[in-house]
Amino acid sequence: MSATLAADEEFERRRLAGEQVLFLATGEIGLPVLPELREHLIAAAGRNAYGPVAGSAELRLAAAGYWSRRGLPTDPADVVCGPGTKPLLFALMLAVGGDVVVPVPTWVSYAAQAQLAGLRSIPVRTRPGEGGVPDPTELRAAVLTARKAGGNPRGVVVTLPDNPTGTIAKPETVRELADVARELDLVIISDEIYCDLAYAPVVSPAIYAPERTVVTTGLTKNLAVGGWRLGVARLPTAELRTKLIGIASQVWSSTAAPVQAAAAYALAEPPEVIRRVAASRRLHERVVRAVADVFAGVGAELDPVQATCYLYPDFEPHRGQLGVTGSDELTQLLSTRYGVAMLPGTAFGEPQHSLRIRAATSRLYGETDAERSAALLAPDPLTLPWIKASIDRLTEVLTQLLKESNVHRHLRS
Amino acid sequence: MSATLAADEEFERRRLAGEQVLFLATGEIGLPVLPELREHLIAAAGRNAYGPVAGSAELRLAAAGYWSRRGLPTDPADVVCGPGTKPLLFALMLAVGGDVVVPVPTWVSYAAQAQLAGLRSIPVRTRPGEGGVPDPTELRAAVLTARKAGGNPRGVVVTLPDNPTGTIAKPETVRELADVARELDLVIISDEIYCDLAYAPVVSPAIYAPERTVVTTGLTKNLAVGGWRLGVARLPTAELRTKLIGIASQVWSSTAAPVQAAAAYALAEPPEVIRRVAASRRLHERVVRAVADVFAGVGAELDPVQATCYLYPDFEPHRGQLGVTGSDELTQLLSTRYGVAMLPGTAFGEPQHSLRIRAATSRLYGETDAERSAALLAPDPLTLPWIKASIDRLTEVLTQLLKESNVHRHLRS
Repeated sequence: MSATLAADEEFERRRLAGEQVLFLATGEIGLPVLPELREHLIAAAGRNAYGPVAGSAELRLAAAGYWSRRGLPTDPADVVCGPGTKPLLFALMLAVGGDVVVPVPTWVSYAAQAQLAGLRSIPVRTRPGEGGVPDPTELRAAVLTARKAGGNPRGVVVTLPDNPTGTIAKPETVRELADVARELDLVIISDEIYCDLAYAPVVSPAIYAPERTVVTTGLTKNLAVGGWRLGVARLPTAELRTKLIGIASQVWSSTAAPVQAAAAYALAEPPEVIRRVAASRRLHERVVRAVADVFAGVGAELDPVQATCYLYPDFEPHRGQLGVTGSDELTQLLSTRYGVAMLPGTAFGEPQHSLRIRAATSRLYGETDAERSAALLAPDPLTLPWIKASIDRLTEVLTQLLKESNVHRHLRS
Repeated sequence: MSATLAADEEFERRRLAGEQVLFLATGEIGLPVLPELREHLIAAAGRNAYGPVAGSAELRLAAAGYWSRRGLPTDPADVVCGPGTKPLLFALMLAVGGDVVVPVPTWVSYAAQAQLAGLRSIPVRTRPGEGGVPDPTELRAAVLTARKAGGNPRGVVVTLPDNPTGTIAKPETVRELADVARELDLVIISDEIYCDLAYAPVVSPAIYAPERTVVTTGLTKNLAVGGWRLGVARLPTAELRTKLIGIASQVWSSTAAPVQAAAAYALAEPPEVIRRVAASRRLHERVVRAVADVFAGVGAELDPVQATCYLYPDFEPHRGQLGVTGSDELTQLLSTRYGVAMLPGTAFGEPQHSLRIRAATSRLYGETDAERSAALLAPDPLTLPWIKASIDRLTEVLTQLLKESNVHRHLRS
């Protein structure tokens, strides 16, 4: 089962059991629905027809405008909608139909999806500080090696901005990747679900390799409606689009019609949507940077925050002191001893011995819609008592963790 | 692409182009949303969290009650929700993970889904007048043959009541199927999406083989909300349920949360839902029987209508007269010459030369919500001018088809 969704469910069980858990395990965005967005869902509640597999004409038009405003001119005919980017990514793997290169570290589901599709995933490390894009030089070598060995790599997945590292690959790296993809005839699947939560410029590979890049995004991260399940893909060729629509028609038929109507409104980006996305971005940035400071303050190594609500600290400098063998044990310790939930690097493709863990800060904004709305509006969200309390608690836990582990080590020795 | 969804889209294009098309190609239910059901979607519009992969606790409880009231005692823990029964059926094929026997004739997507999942589908004919359940004797032979040849059949799909034939397999046949499945250790996947649109008793294989039968259903047919995309599965074992949830977590995460809330209301079956489903069933039965009479009246062969809004007439008695080689040509002729859309038997796994075609009557209830509501309320919907006009037009077309084709044959000879 997906590590993030499993963590969500465990958290909910512990919360219902009355436990106090500081939940930093998953990136579900803990913010309320924008009222105007909710109203558009409500207005479309009577829509009960399947509609086109690729999505309604109004939705595809809105998505085309959304991308066109971001430097990617798009024809509505090139847009395909699905019940989340997750099913779109899965169907794209089936459509591309060969082995697929995935970055390391990597989002929890790419490799699992490839396996379900009966395909091999080929892990390729990213460059330091540039998560989400397999190092183009290593990509080239890995694909050539796989082909020599009789494999059939046909695609490469990139995450821009990146989950789990919260970084953004440099434009030069993206361009190199595009060149290698062209040279080796690979389809690039660019997962850009976090494109509106970037604190530095993002350049899509669709700029450099428009003829072979699929871009996916949705409303899950920018507008906090992950539970509504809607994603959109921008297809580079009629051939791939036709394949994707064929697969979609057999796997999910269409996307919930009332949600499509609301998404068409959102992707057209009226002023209140732009304002809400900007407010969310400010909130995420302020909180994620404060939490990054906490990790840095106790001596964990981490790359500068450039996007998303994710941090990917490395406790390698504390290995001797911690007395754990890897990230699984480290997150287990944090969870059971301190009630702090984070995910181990192993969930993102790291080796067992690595001490990288992933922290997500998007659930720190409050327990109620009132608290969460206040967080969105606050000039400085860090002064809100519930957010301050979480950050203080994390500081206390990490400080204590390093101290106590140290003691344990001494007792054992 | 799915034959039914392709037909839907073609119809919509022709309708927008101003063409008059008598649309009998697909089983989308042309009825408005029950107002109370719409209100429950509206009330849940603020729900934006993913929630559990398997579905919310209230939804699973309601689904368990729904099945328990139908003679299948169900624990809410055994229910898994998905964005339609289509993705559930696909994920179930992956979860069962072996070749799968499908009935012939068969719904358009089972074999296509098996192929996408990298599995082989093994077609087995149904008994006359008992669509949806592969003849148990032939099933046994086909599975043994496949195993001898090194294949790995592990599941069998049944459709109860059946699409495309509008019939229901007899309880004795279902019991025989259950026995064969037990003997050969096959999982039975029982697609019961039409279980509330039956005009004769339906017995689920889950009665005879509860230890190995998965049942799926949803709100698409009984409450006409196909475009909302929600299905539920009832799993027989913890092992299969865990596998299904794991696959669901990687392919679609969860089902639109507002839709889940509305479905929880509907599956609890308050009086107004029961009344609406009963009214729909009455309407479907009246209209589908009238259309069956039209086909019978021109001499097509068809089995007595027992369920659904489907008919599966065979024009074999008119083969000489029609001058077509098979159902593809026959439906093409009906579409281009007369603007009547139906699907060829080939879409349901029939051989090319067969003259079976499938007619669906669920779009005859009107063009507007007002007409459709009137159809639901009418003591005799056949007297409504728009329904009468469609049935009269079909009578005229079929009569003319047989007459004209006859003339053409004479001209050619």
